[in-house]
Amino acid sequence: MTYIKTDIPQPGIVELLFYKPSTGRALSALADTILLGPSTLTPGERETIAAYVSLLNNCEFCHESHSASVNAHLQDNGATIACMRKDISTIPVSEKMKKLLVVAAQVQQSGKAVKPETVEVARQAGATDEEIHDTVLVAAAFCMYNRYVDGLGTNLPKSKDDYAEMGVRMAKGYKMPPAFMQKFVLWMMKRKQKQ
Amino acid sequence: MTYIKTDIPQPGIVELLFYKPSTGRALSALADTILLGPSTLTPGERETIAAYVSLLNNCEFCHESHSASVNAHLQDNGATIACMRKDISTIPVSEKMKKLLVVAAQVQQSGKAVKPETVEVARQAGATDEEIHDTVLVAAAFCMYNRYVDGLGTNLPKSKDDYAEMGVRMAKGYKMPPAFMQKFVLWMMKRKQKQ
Repeated sequence: MTYIKTDIPQPGIVELLFYKPSTGRALSALADTILLGPSTLTPGERETIAAYVSLLNNCEFCHESHSASVNAHLQDNGATIACMRKDISTIPVSEKMKKLLVVAAQVQQSGKAVKPETVEVARQAGATDEEIHDTVLVAAAFCMYNRYVDGLGTNLPKSKDDYAEMGVRMAKGYKMPPAFMQKFVLWMMKRKQKQ
Repeated sequence: MTYIKTDIPQPGIVELLFYKPSTGRALSALADTILLGPSTLTPGERETIAAYVSLLNNCEFCHESHSASVNAHLQDNGATIACMRKDISTIPVSEKMKKLLVVAAQVQQSGKAVKPETVEVARQAGATDEEIHDTVLVAAAFCMYNRYVDGLGTNLPKSKDDYAEMGVRMAKGYKMPPAFMQKFVLWMMKRKQKQ
């Protein structure tokens, strides 16, 4: 049960985003920018980094929901996520992405854990400066989102089946509805849960 | 030396914010919202959490710059930061803030490290739900900013004296200049560095 009282019966970060709309909007805009904004890494590749860092941080809600978003983007019958969970070395992504995932794993440990040699290996595999930047930023950002979600003890959805629909929605964008729409959106979400 | 080539000779996160303005704007807007936006924790209190988490993450640039911002907000001749660095139990803040700093330290370790008992102790010391929320979010966000700054190997300013001026600027706001102004702002910053 969430450590604070919010009166918003939504799972994971959704409860928190609606609880405080000022920070909710800024956090959603950031997610939208780093996962779907300008980058030569595809949204599917960036969501793969997000799902991987969330797995390393043991954040079930973020790992499951961003895994569902990876599935929605890649349409690979869950192969990428299955390999990630079993043995990251078998993940069916480009060599460049494999090396960027090693950078992401170092970011998950700490900023200081990122070695210039690891960055150089990614560069040799074809990663550009901007792709290295984007990888470090996405990995760092999920060290925030994961801590926000678990540090406030938010709830999981009632059923694991809920993630698939969540992933489809996330793949379309992360921006929050404008302030005047939020009560209506919350009402709609509650109504849907009751069905 | 920064692990990527940016052509922006600025210290710490400033180099990265100007390197990629789309993510720079979202990251700056988030910092502005969580440190200076609506909250019953004062900006000085929220900057204290930011400086403390950055110290725990061993991120010199973020710790020094947010310490300077704490000094600018509190005008206490650096007493709060000096105690933080020497022995956190001596920090001259309210009992409520002391307990919230314990929550922040758990967030720094991981989301899962935050214990409901620690949250309850902060609540008993007078922290509201929103203040607990804001503490977890600021602490989590600095686990991102610290990793972004150190994970890309950004540079420190030439002199430690530069932080004081930085802190005064940060205490006024974090928003980036609009896109059409950025080249001019960069030119001004370079010009100032040469003086």
